Amino acid sequence: MTPAVTAEQVQSFIDVVQSRRSVRKYDSDTKISRDELKEILTLASKAPSSSNMQHWRYLVIDSPERKQELLPIANSQQQVVEASAVIAILGDLEGWRNADQIYRQAAEAGYMAPDLAKQFAERSTQMYSSLPKDRAREIAVIDASLAAMQLMLVARAKGYDTVPMGGFDREKFKAAFELGDRYVPVMLIPIGKAAQEGHPTTRLPIEDVTFWNEVSPSH
Amino acid sequence: MTPAVTAEQVQSFIDVVQSRRSVRKYDSDTKISRDELKEILTLASKAPSSSNMQHWRYLVIDSPERKQELLPIANSQQQVVEASAVIAILGDLEGWRNADQIYRQAAEAGYMAPDLAKQFAERSTQMYSSLPKDRAREIAVIDASLAAMQLMLVARAKGYDTVPMGGFDREKFKAAFELGDRYVPVMLIPIGKAAQEGHPTTRLPIEDVTFWNEVSPSH
Repeated sequence: MTPAVTAEQVQSFIDVVQSRRSVRKYDSDTKISRDELKEILTLASKAPSSSNMQHWRYLVIDSPERKQELLPIANSQQQVVEASAVIAILGDLEGWRNADQIYRQAAEAGYMAPDLAKQFAERSTQMYSSLPKDRAREIAVIDASLAAMQLMLVARAKGYDTVPMGGFDREKFKAAFELGDRYVPVMLIPIGKAAQEGHPTTRLPIEDVTFWNEVSPSH
Repeated sequence: MTPAVTAEQVQSFIDVVQSRRSVRKYDSDTKISRDELKEILTLASKAPSSSNMQHWRYLVIDSPERKQELLPIANSQQQVVEASAVIAILGDLEGWRNADQIYRQAAEAGYMAPDLAKQFAERSTQMYSSLPKDRAREIAVIDASLAAMQLMLVARAKGYDTVPMGGFDREKFKAAFELGDRYVPVMLIPIGKAAQEGHPTTRLPIEDVTFWNEVSPSH
């Protein structure tokens, strides 16, 4: 039922995964056009999400002034000004506001009967708008992180580099970019062409991070 | 500085992203070997993480008994018994316990001077073990979600299907699999061969989820 894949395609995919490294030095002459950024974000947004609510939002910071403003907020890490753009990955705490549109689109595409789509939209609006705050935030953060990972891989496949940054002042960021209470900053992702390769890193042995059928106390 | 990519490789990567769908009907005769699961998890773990702390953990549920036990916890969704395995993605709230090993590995691989590695390990242990609980949890959830997305794409590239599930009783899951206070269940990912294609879904127009340099109030 699933499309056949050739060994070469598998390897080419694995190469993307293996070649992605966190890059901190960017060629500041490289400019990725907004059209290409939109293409990358469109592919990132093919990620799955909670009830297809797509709680991710992208705040693209590509103006020199805004990048400079971001610099002290991001602990003066030069990549935020040297990269072509910084994509702030946000979680939308009020993603249910789009439920009607999401299910209307599904009905219009012929993926769902209009009546059912209406029911689903109502149920999702009701369910997501009444979630406890902590749970709503966690769902938004998870959806946003899924899109973030896909974004970094799509960028690498297209020959660009990225680095996910958690080290920035969240309060100052929220204030500077007027996120209000609706949007949670999840991470910053500078994107551009590497001027210097990212350094290689190791991973814990897979046995140390995997449990089989039960969580063993030795971990 | 970055490896050259051919147009074919880019397309083959995009095909993987585009062809991944949430699959809910699995061929229950397909068994993915533990060796192959480990290979998939090893690639998933190439995801980036906060200070390379790798807060993801995988609880692989592949025994028929455990899958049956999971069924009522997962709202009787048949995919948890029909898929070859269910990979519960966990966040480790005490990932700093591995800081020494992570930096020792980096030094052993020659990626970092031993003295520096020791300093980094101490700093990470100190920093991550003293984080406010909410922040520690969010970091663990983000890292785990990045690995989860990469896992789903790697699975697809290798011809398998998955579905990320957020709909399960977290408290009952924690009790049944004895997660204690250390591990946060982030999502369940059944993995196997589709018996029936996942249904297509739509996404919001990219303009509706993207801001340029400032968050516009119209969104």
